[in-house]
Amino acid sequence: MTAFRERIAERVKETGSLLCVGLDSDMARIPKEHLEAGDPQVSFNKAIIDATKDFAACYKPNAAFYEARGAAGWTALAQTGEYLRSLGIPSILDAKRGDIGNTARMYAKAFFEEMLFDSVTVNPYMGEDAIAPFRDYENKGVFVLCYTSNASRVDLQTQTIDMGEGSRKPLYELVAQRIREWDTADNLCAVVGATAPEELGDVRRILGREIPILCPGIGAQGGDLHSTLEHGTATIRGNVLINASRSILFASSGEDFAEAARKSAEELVQGMRAYLNRSAEE
Amino acid sequence: MTAFRERIAERVKETGSLLCVGLDSDMARIPKEHLEAGDPQVSFNKAIIDATKDFAACYKPNAAFYEARGAAGWTALAQTGEYLRSLGIPSILDAKRGDIGNTARMYAKAFFEEMLFDSVTVNPYMGEDAIAPFRDYENKGVFVLCYTSNASRVDLQTQTIDMGEGSRKPLYELVAQRIREWDTADNLCAVVGATAPEELGDVRRILGREIPILCPGIGAQGGDLHSTLEHGTATIRGNVLINASRSILFASSGEDFAEAARKSAEELVQGMRAYLNRSAEE
Repeated sequence: MTAFRERIAERVKETGSLLCVGLDSDMARIPKEHLEAGDPQVSFNKAIIDATKDFAACYKPNAAFYEARGAAGWTALAQTGEYLRSLGIPSILDAKRGDIGNTARMYAKAFFEEMLFDSVTVNPYMGEDAIAPFRDYENKGVFVLCYTSNASRVDLQTQTIDMGEGSRKPLYELVAQRIREWDTADNLCAVVGATAPEELGDVRRILGREIPILCPGIGAQGGDLHSTLEHGTATIRGNVLINASRSILFASSGEDFAEAARKSAEELVQGMRAYLNRSAEE
Repeated sequence: MTAFRERIAERVKETGSLLCVGLDSDMARIPKEHLEAGDPQVSFNKAIIDATKDFAACYKPNAAFYEARGAAGWTALAQTGEYLRSLGIPSILDAKRGDIGNTARMYAKAFFEEMLFDSVTVNPYMGEDAIAPFRDYENKGVFVLCYTSNASRVDLQTQTIDMGEGSRKPLYELVAQRIREWDTADNLCAVVGATAPEELGDVRRILGREIPILCPGIGAQGGDLHSTLEHGTATIRGNVLINASRSILFASSGEDFAEAARKSAEELVQGMRAYLNRSAEE
């Protein structure tokens, strides 16, 4: 089985896209009257995936939007994972879990065995113990939160760590360093918000060239595409993924929702291609 | 509706116990041959709850052990919450979630509306945005991870933060300070591992007297009961909860599993009462 990072790089090459479409499929915003029969989240996700897959390197279902429906949502989440798998498109389950070893093993079992996602997002606060049980699945990917896209990231992530001997760095840079140290199976990735392009550049320097960075925050959260591509060094294909969720899923609330989603994805990807072509010529 | 902290304090008074029984109901260890008909996790949890409830201030189902079963586990988790609610016993869903506002709102909906848990554990790495949607449910409790019980907590939590003007503190003390700042609805609580009694004392001084601290790590993880009670200032009833999971649930794998669980819980509570009575006499 191909390792996760290679799968991403291959898919990016195939599609000419760095776009990750976030499946934050909010029941309150799904245009149910325009869906085929069946579970609304599953039908909606399939329609979105079918409409956007020419422009998507991967998809990222956000667990919260499924859990909010209880067991039915959990089934919809699993079915969404199965559909992506049937198409051979890499998936990221956005779950942000983090717990002690025996508990993290159960989460890994839930996402990689009971469901069949290709990768998952995790939280670094509890340290390597919380990451290792996911990392042990060598063909799966593990996206570790580093510097997030939200305003209150400053509460902890930008606080100054004193590393001794006069060396100081913000917490998110220490986390980037840990991600590199923990990357013993070549399957870790990092999450850095697109709302902080310069900090993204700092993280890229610490991580080195090979560790992929997922950048949420384009679109509804206001991140800028070009600075994100530049500071994330997107010219190495597959080492930056740009996530957009609401701006694609809910581009229209009418019967043209899928077509509008495709158009929104296409516009983002055209922006990426223009950047990538220009970089290649330089 | 009574606020969560008051409910805990009342229940502690009623039972004379600070024990939180962790429902890490691992399917591989449930003695299925000794259960009544029905879902194994639900039957097991009901048997454990019935056997131990005289000695338990509250119960803490660990979401991972249910998610590992898929939708059936999610249903078992919801039913466990309903059973606790029918008995009027406070529940803590150990879910350790943490995400941006619109996502955290969905998790809060999942745990507090779709299911009916009384409180939840959350991760502080993303800052106040990730806490606020849970805190907004004023009658629910929100346990914020502060200093965890696992070995790799040192990767981030004990790193030295430079607060300026010569002031320095470990990250977990900054988190304790944040918990106090974020406690605007009087419904936050903290999680500090029982495997670090002195650090627990430091956190207690920062939090003040009123914010309850949940201490996991007694039993299988090796934490000491008496130092935890002392450093957590358990003489204020209800402001410390001591969690034990595996040492109670799996005290026996035979047909006497429920009786063995009761005995294990009773021993822990006798240790607590001896300490509390001695403190009261001093």
